Amino acid sequence: MIRVNENYLKLQASWLFSEIAKKVSAFQSANPGMDIIKLGIGDVTRSLPRACIDALHHAVDEMADDTTFRGYGPDQGYEFLRQEIAENDFQARGADISPDEIFISDGAKCDAGNIQEIFAARTRVALPDPVYPVYLDSNVMAGRTGPANTDGKYEGIIYMPCTAENDFVPQIPDSKVDLIYLCFPNNPTGAVATKQQLKKWVDYARENKAVILFDAAYEAFISEPDIPHSIYEIDGSKEVAIEFRSFSKTAGFTGVRCAFTIVPKQLKAYTNAGKSVNINPLWNRRHCTKFNGVSYITQAGAAAVYTPKGKKQTRQIIDIYMNNAVKIRKSLTGLGFEVYGGINAPYIWLKTPNGQSSWDFFDMLLKKANIVGTPGSGFGAAGKGYFRLTAFARPEHVEQAMQRFAAVVE
Amino acid sequence: MIRVNENYLKLQASWLFSEIAKKVSAFQSANPGMDIIKLGIGDVTRSLPRACIDALHHAVDEMADDTTFRGYGPDQGYEFLRQEIAENDFQARGADISPDEIFISDGAKCDAGNIQEIFAARTRVALPDPVYPVYLDSNVMAGRTGPANTDGKYEGIIYMPCTAENDFVPQIPDSKVDLIYLCFPNNPTGAVATKQQLKKWVDYARENKAVILFDAAYEAFISEPDIPHSIYEIDGSKEVAIEFRSFSKTAGFTGVRCAFTIVPKQLKAYTNAGKSVNINPLWNRRHCTKFNGVSYITQAGAAAVYTPKGKKQTRQIIDIYMNNAVKIRKSLTGLGFEVYGGINAPYIWLKTPNGQSSWDFFDMLLKKANIVGTPGSGFGAAGKGYFRLTAFARPEHVEQAMQRFAAVVE
Repeated sequence: MIRVNENYLKLQASWLFSEIAKKVSAFQSANPGMDIIKLGIGDVTRSLPRACIDALHHAVDEMADDTTFRGYGPDQGYEFLRQEIAENDFQARGADISPDEIFISDGAKCDAGNIQEIFAARTRVALPDPVYPVYLDSNVMAGRTGPANTDGKYEGIIYMPCTAENDFVPQIPDSKVDLIYLCFPNNPTGAVATKQQLKKWVDYARENKAVILFDAAYEAFISEPDIPHSIYEIDGSKEVAIEFRSFSKTAGFTGVRCAFTIVPKQLKAYTNAGKSVNINPLWNRRHCTKFNGVSYITQAGAAAVYTPKGKKQTRQIIDIYMNNAVKIRKSLTGLGFEVYGGINAPYIWLKTPNGQSSWDFFDMLLKKANIVGTPGSGFGAAGKGYFRLTAFARPEHVEQAMQRFAAVVE
Repeated sequence: MIRVNENYLKLQASWLFSEIAKKVSAFQSANPGMDIIKLGIGDVTRSLPRACIDALHHAVDEMADDTTFRGYGPDQGYEFLRQEIAENDFQARGADISPDEIFISDGAKCDAGNIQEIFAARTRVALPDPVYPVYLDSNVMAGRTGPANTDGKYEGIIYMPCTAENDFVPQIPDSKVDLIYLCFPNNPTGAVATKQQLKKWVDYARENKAVILFDAAYEAFISEPDIPHSIYEIDGSKEVAIEFRSFSKTAGFTGVRCAFTIVPKQLKAYTNAGKSVNINPLWNRRHCTKFNGVSYITQAGAAAVYTPKGKKQTRQIIDIYMNNAVKIRKSLTGLGFEVYGGINAPYIWLKTPNGQSSWDFFDMLLKKANIVGTPGSGFGAAGKGYFRLTAFARPEHVEQAMQRFAAVVE
């Protein structure tokens, strides 16, 4: 008799954003023609940079001709793209990453979800709270947790609360942990970590033979100097850290699908017998066995991000989103909200007024202002009473949304 | 201390095709300028159908305009593509599959590798031998096997030998099995199964509450009538079978990346306590958590395969490959080889002459004829003494390859 992976049955309700989509869809059906402004899911709204469009067209034309057609590419990604990434995203910032430490993929979500597979079933996982749900759910599916309690917390996970008190940067937990998820600039809180703060984590990992999974999908939104864009700006981090990056938010690739993961050659994990094992070839084995490379067309489009035109155009798009963030911060602060993020990240994290629950605030906002946001509680217990807004909308919609916010709150 | 998933350490050597690529690369370095003909990896060589090229360009243009730009799509794929698949690939053949049973992905390799995750760790897995290595390796990684023996066979796997004696269609094993991998038209043997043969498997699965994973990535190459293109042409199969399909070989998408998996709503698996669980929502949960949908551009290109022009153009390309297959069959048979496949599949499976080992034959062919093929032993113990050639090369290369074959053998 075929049996299911019963760990899946421990998962709570549905994927957060499906839940939101369902609520919005029900509201729309009940109120046809209603003009809803979406500041919920972190999806971009501006078209691709022209440099990428031109490169995509060129690549499509190459696929139309037998002499330039490309079939299977390298599973790890084309050298032309890995080289640009190594130089521009890392070496230019003093981080010594080489192309053979870079694995091109179809999404940071996929990589962040799949990476846990290469580690032991009995791994002590430390997660920030609130957190991007994929880190948690993928570990639940893999059986690294017990069931969830009524608070939504899973037995076996070490939660690291990120609150206003610790500037949304988690403290090192009291109990020993093996696998640590960190995300800066943070989704959902918009917080960043300084070099000193990251160094503490790198030191901890080195001392305790732990591994840090560092999600830097939002690094392009950092506006303040001295904030590290990569964990590899921290000395010693190559021994203990894997980093996730994406073109999704940087260059509007959410619907195009291209990302990459860095697995340094120095990085090691251990067998039960204490023998060290290099992680780079292990991830390579997974990548080659369960993945088949990213579309050549897509990779050609992504490489254009690193051309002079591509750099200028992506910067212009990011500036538009970050102007939205400034506007949201300013408006909501003016309305008396307690507001975080939005300076080095496209996310604004606000405290719901009068102790309202996150979902109550969601419902109120949808019903009264026709604005969709994301309930903070969807990201974990420490997100209760918080709410996330994204800056990815069009400026005119952000303007309008802020007027509606004012009308509802006053 | 962070520990590795030690199941990975049970994996033997490297991924078959990486191994071949390494050998070829070493030979090329030692013999620069040598004109090598590649009939090894099953990669297409002809450019994309014009209908797909036009659709890809059009989709790229849509991504260049804020008003038609698309960000995240549905994780399961766009309705416009799922609808075409349901109608053309299934309903038109009398198989009642609806769009919400179709999950668009970036590759059949990915889906075939990931699918095992939703089943219990203690699942009795039955694999054809020879077999596409991904089915096996993904189960080794998941810990469903013991170590491999000197013959390359893993403890715990039920191997089903496919030989000339059973027309390369596996018999139902003596011991009970839960999860059965079948692939028709077969990679690597090129064999097909009749409706009667598949019905036996469906009946077995229904009686024993087993699940069949049916890989039909090569169905477009079937030339004989009455051979089923889908397992859903067999009554009752929707209760027990998942099917994998791909645009890779059908429409030359190996470098574009688009495939799909069918998980019928009737399909069930069970908890330890014997409670039935629907598999469609379980796979949906995995898909939404660890995958983020296929590029809109790619899906638009794939949908063009179902237009009248697209159908005609893909058929023309497939005919070219199948003419290659006929030529290879004819030439090798004429040279006295024992040859299988190549009638309903783009693969030719031949017995090495004089009891030569698969890898010795590989080395001889590379060195003396500068032809790359795939050693049958790379697909499993029952593939020993066999060799796979693909029909995906250009006709002039196939012509040349057959002349070289003749020169070497005679």
